[in-house]
Amino acid sequence: MTGADRRPDLAALLWPRSVAVIGASPDAESLRGRIMRVLTGHLFEGKLYPITRSHAEVMGLKAYPSISDLPEPADLAILIIPASYVPAELDRCGRAGVRSAVVLSSGFAEAAGGEGAGLQDEMRAVVERYGMAVMGPNSEGFANTASALCPTFSPAVEPSDRPLLPVGRERGQVAVIAQSGGIGFSFFDHARAREMAVRYVITTGNEACLETLDFADFVLDEGKVSALLMLLEDVKSADTFRRVAEKALKVGVPIIVNKIGQSEAGARAAASHTAALAGAYDAHRAMFQRYGLIEGRDLGEMVDIASGFVAFGTRLPAGHRVGICTASGGGGGWMADACAAAGLEVPELDAATRASIDVHLPAYGTSQNPVDATAQAVHKIGYAGLAELVAASPRVDGLIVVMTARNPANLERQRESLARLAAQTEKPILLWSYTLPAPASMKLLSEAGYPLFTSVPNCARTMKAMAGYRALRERFLRPIEVRAANQVDAGAREEVRNLLLARSGNVLCEWEARPLLAAYGIGARHPGTLVQSAEAAAAAARAFGKPVALKVQSPDLPHKTEAGAVALGLVSADEVRAAYERVTDSARRYAPHARVLGVLVQPMAQPGREVLLGIKRDATFGPMLMVGLGGVQVEVYKDVVLAPLPLSRPEARDMLTGLQGAQLLGAFRGRPEADVDALAELMVRLAQFASNHATEIDSIDLNPVILHDKGNGVSVVDALIVRSVGGPRPR
Amino acid sequence: MTGADRRPDLAALLWPRSVAVIGASPDAESLRGRIMRVLTGHLFEGKLYPITRSHAEVMGLKAYPSISDLPEPADLAILIIPASYVPAELDRCGRAGVRSAVVLSSGFAEAAGGEGAGLQDEMRAVVERYGMAVMGPNSEGFANTASALCPTFSPAVEPSDRPLLPVGRERGQVAVIAQSGGIGFSFFDHARAREMAVRYVITTGNEACLETLDFADFVLDEGKVSALLMLLEDVKSADTFRRVAEKALKVGVPIIVNKIGQSEAGARAAASHTAALAGAYDAHRAMFQRYGLIEGRDLGEMVDIASGFVAFGTRLPAGHRVGICTASGGGGGWMADACAAAGLEVPELDAATRASIDVHLPAYGTSQNPVDATAQAVHKIGYAGLAELVAASPRVDGLIVVMTARNPANLERQRESLARLAAQTEKPILLWSYTLPAPASMKLLSEAGYPLFTSVPNCARTMKAMAGYRALRERFLRPIEVRAANQVDAGAREEVRNLLLARSGNVLCEWEARPLLAAYGIGARHPGTLVQSAEAAAAAARAFGKPVALKVQSPDLPHKTEAGAVALGLVSADEVRAAYERVTDSARRYAPHARVLGVLVQPMAQPGREVLLGIKRDATFGPMLMVGLGGVQVEVYKDVVLAPLPLSRPEARDMLTGLQGAQLLGAFRGRPEADVDALAELMVRLAQFASNHATEIDSIDLNPVILHDKGNGVSVVDALIVRSVGGPRPR
Repeated sequence: MTGADRRPDLAALLWPRSVAVIGASPDAESLRGRIMRVLTGHLFEGKLYPITRSHAEVMGLKAYPSISDLPEPADLAILIIPASYVPAELDRCGRAGVRSAVVLSSGFAEAAGGEGAGLQDEMRAVVERYGMAVMGPNSEGFANTASALCPTFSPAVEPSDRPLLPVGRERGQVAVIAQSGGIGFSFFDHARAREMAVRYVITTGNEACLETLDFADFVLDEGKVSALLMLLEDVKSADTFRRVAEKALKVGVPIIVNKIGQSEAGARAAASHTAALAGAYDAHRAMFQRYGLIEGRDLGEMVDIASGFVAFGTRLPAGHRVGICTASGGGGGWMADACAAAGLEVPELDAATRASIDVHLPAYGTSQNPVDATAQAVHKIGYAGLAELVAASPRVDGLIVVMTARNPANLERQRESLARLAAQTEKPILLWSYTLPAPASMKLLSEAGYPLFTSVPNCARTMKAMAGYRALRERFLRPIEVRAANQVDAGAREEVRNLLLARSGNVLCEWEARPLLAAYGIGARHPGTLVQSAEAAAAAARAFGKPVALKVQSPDLPHKTEAGAVALGLVSADEVRAAYERVTDSARRYAPHARVLGVLVQPMAQPGREVLLGIKRDATFGPMLMVGLGGVQVEVYKDVVLAPLPLSRPEARDMLTGLQGAQLLGAFRGRPEADVDALAELMVRLAQFASNHATEIDSIDLNPVILHDKGNGVSVVDALIVRSVGGPRPR
Repeated sequence: MTGADRRPDLAALLWPRSVAVIGASPDAESLRGRIMRVLTGHLFEGKLYPITRSHAEVMGLKAYPSISDLPEPADLAILIIPASYVPAELDRCGRAGVRSAVVLSSGFAEAAGGEGAGLQDEMRAVVERYGMAVMGPNSEGFANTASALCPTFSPAVEPSDRPLLPVGRERGQVAVIAQSGGIGFSFFDHARAREMAVRYVITTGNEACLETLDFADFVLDEGKVSALLMLLEDVKSADTFRRVAEKALKVGVPIIVNKIGQSEAGARAAASHTAALAGAYDAHRAMFQRYGLIEGRDLGEMVDIASGFVAFGTRLPAGHRVGICTASGGGGGWMADACAAAGLEVPELDAATRASIDVHLPAYGTSQNPVDATAQAVHKIGYAGLAELVAASPRVDGLIVVMTARNPANLERQRESLARLAAQTEKPILLWSYTLPAPASMKLLSEAGYPLFTSVPNCARTMKAMAGYRALRERFLRPIEVRAANQVDAGAREEVRNLLLARSGNVLCEWEARPLLAAYGIGARHPGTLVQSAEAAAAAARAFGKPVALKVQSPDLPHKTEAGAVALGLVSADEVRAAYERVTDSARRYAPHARVLGVLVQPMAQPGREVLLGIKRDATFGPMLMVGLGGVQVEVYKDVVLAPLPLSRPEARDMLTGLQGAQLLGAFRGRPEADVDALAELMVRLAQFASNHATEIDSIDLNPVILHDKGNGVSVVDALIVRSVGGPRPR
């Protein structure tokens, strides 16, 4: 078996029995020494082999001059040597039977000038030859806390009195996977401060071989974590993204993600940093929404969200209604505002629940919600007693307890009742301490089974994310929804392929585009007549017997309206003739060398709401479908929704309800409801078309589609297809 | 001099030389004992007098049976006794010459049932009689850290090894003022963790006498703090708000505020909590924006924002352009995204600056911005060296240094260079540590003069708030802008008053409202003819010689369109006659008993953009002006802007540019620019009208105003005035 036949074995990388450090040094001030200090300072039970020609021993361990001199092939080699030596050294590793490597060296594709990129290609070729599992280059290594293995020079996991994992924490772990080493390990800081167990910190650097999502895949298969924290600079393979994201959703492990490069400047940083070309952010966001990835804006926020899933991942809120209880009226009000801002409801409690609470309250408390129980009642029945009463209300799906965790002594008295409630509650309970909690309080509450927040908005957003994730996942798991709703026979696909091959240019004007779209039931094949003279135009108009539009048809005039090459609502023969001359003149003046096929005479569609429907190819994720309401809604308010393909009917409808101006599709100002079903059907067909011809098509514009009142369907009144430059061509 | 003649002396309250605790107890487990422990545990240099009948001594201090038994009148009395005893006890205090009091007792207006509210009124009457300065009731007391006086039972300031103020911190203090005691003191926790000096924590409770803003006023006059942190549940007096907010802006002390009760549930909490009736939030926000109050959403965020002003309040950024430098590419990218999200720019640096940086960078660094200097360069030239190079760029107004402050030893070496830079820089420099900083790092960097953030968005928002505050303040300080732009002579005011007095009902329909508005130059006095028959309508229309509108005029039909009592665009005499019958019929059917003045025949205005202009009275702040673009913009996208009165022309224009759909007012889709000047002028006049008649008018609707193209002015095509129920009436 040659290396190339093997799939890289991530277990050899993350769970090695023997680790060689190529470039090890006894100088603890240098990176090469620091990594040795970190590695030897933890209780890793496998073998450690320093590789160096300069020393016979490094930090008490026998050193070897070369990887090939080891008594056994190492499972994992850590490379911390100049970039230019890396390819040859990896080759030596491959020959010595090393199964995996972490390349910490910098100076590859992230460096200015082409040299580093060349080295990276060279390195990748070597790795592929041996089928090794390789992290990096430009990685900061990883930490596997369960095996106390930390091949990294990150100070975050430097040996100290504090254990890597909270003692006795087997369940409720998270994994951190980041391209950026510095940020990756800083998640560990934030998680540890919250008494959370981090199973892995994995920092992938330039991802020459393995990418973030490959590691996510491995971690998901292992089945040991409750949440994944991920910092993405780019997605290398859309297929891997889809596969891994679906797997995560299936097993119910949320991926909490920040994507670097949302802004232009952020993208600049990502490009220079780990050689990532940040994809268009809107498409990423649409993908995240489709697959239930939860976006975070801050390190602390992401860890906070994870803490909610760690504690209550199997008891997510069934809806968006929150009960808030507190001894601080101000704190309860603040939390209620934050819940509303996060999209949660804080309904008044039902009478029975209120009555059960009221018996414990003094006159200056209130049971409405937020339940301001006052310090007096909390002292009497405890936070758990209070929360239990509120949780009993059928009007709430989850609870937030506003508390002060400054003093662990107060909480110590409530330890048992709190732990019992956490174990028994069917509704998740999040805690917000407005005072800064003592570390001991954090520990106590974490052991009792609660996530403890110090930020108001983070607490509210966590509840919202938990409810949203449950709803999305339940829909995802529901017995197969037919995604490809319309049944396009194979013939249609073949027909479109052939029609595309028959064209020479990249742009297909309406007259050319329509037959392709019509094969999928999108619009009429030829809803009009193509004419070459004013007289023929008048005759065609007469034949239709209703007002017509005239549109110059040319693949060189994709923006007809700008060119003055369109005339609408023409009634009399004279009007039609005059318009013919006008639009052809304008077109000629606008683009003197345009190839003109003729002028399309088309009966005006019945009026209705204007909708803009289109397909745009994203560099990473391929074709995405966009829908918006025509007019100022799109132009001024940028009110459009984007979604990846494929697209089911319910997903199409969700896109429409996701528009800010969604109410314009319902009955509005005396106008009846629009035919949303017909629009959703059209969207599904367009998505099907774009999926089937993803490599051939760059973009499609149906602008506008006229959306008629309920029962009257849609009219596609214009169409434009742009083929992809790289797509198949006539031979 | 009787008490009532004196203004309450807040210095007696916050800086007393002698303090009596009425209800003091030696039992440190009770609140009455805890307050004694807190008071005696700090090095307050004044006198402490426990008042209790049960003990001769409390915690080593001689106790007195009554306030009247003291050897001297106490400057301040702390009351921690049952609510029902409070009024009598305050009376005793007044008689004994006590000048101020803090009422910690609960059970006043915040309690259910009317009893507590009655007690609160009683208490207020006593206080007014003696002119005492009184905090509470239902307060948690205060802390004056400079005099080590903490009359509170809050555990936040319990005596400990840790000093109340960071050692050696004289400048750069903040004050916290909150109605909520729990939250008020938790600000202290958050600020202390950031090594910030808190001069006061003041918790005002029910504010029966002194409100949050009275204390703000005192603190501003003192001139010792760089920022005010404020938690508001309600504003008691709009005048006080305006006066204090203006004072703060004048002296350049930003008020960082959270207003509880932004949501319905939050308002519920505020109402029950400190007996506040939360005002409509939109009006509060408009007031905050007008006076430069900075809104925060989280405790930590508010303290973070304050820390930026503490360090660089006198060197605020002159614009929104940020330079970011980092040794972590991922961290730089994340910060760049956060800056963009906060509304800041992260421009590429100029060539000269880049060249000066590039000499220090390895191939895999970049100087574009974010400047990813790599760990290597940072090690070489230090964070200060790097920041100094970036700050030199004319393209940036402020700097953010992305760093790791985990290890204080690294920073210790840079202490001097960092301190020197902080002292010399003209552009503010904020630090974000992606790793959790050690407390020693926090201390070191704070002493060096920097604010250190652990949250990405908070750091970016702080820079944005600093830039926004500077811009707003500079505009505020500019030599007097004429606010009341149009010169309304006193006659107009008198005329409107008389016209209002002449009306009997609350609603003034268009025909009645127009003369009032016209007195201020708002719309035509009577742009049409009031008729009582179809024939008269036809005659009037003929006289105008252009298309007309017919509108039934009745104070009992404020919603004419809904009632079918409007007809538009009528051309022929027959049309006019038919329309007359139709609209009067509809009106009769809709409101059979409506008093109908007649039908207004009005020439149709030239077409233009529809604008909605109105005045709405806010319960707290009085009349507010609202403007929005007619159509879906208002109805669906809720695109309206609200501002308090008075309104200057620049402020009116700011409102218009603040509309999401502002671009619709410019040249758009072949339509020329709108006459924005005329609209701004109309807004200023309407504001003037509403200001002058604030007590008489409840609301005004000019809906729609037709905004014509530039140079063609505006047409007010409908008007409605609703008088305030409490306003002056005919005698």
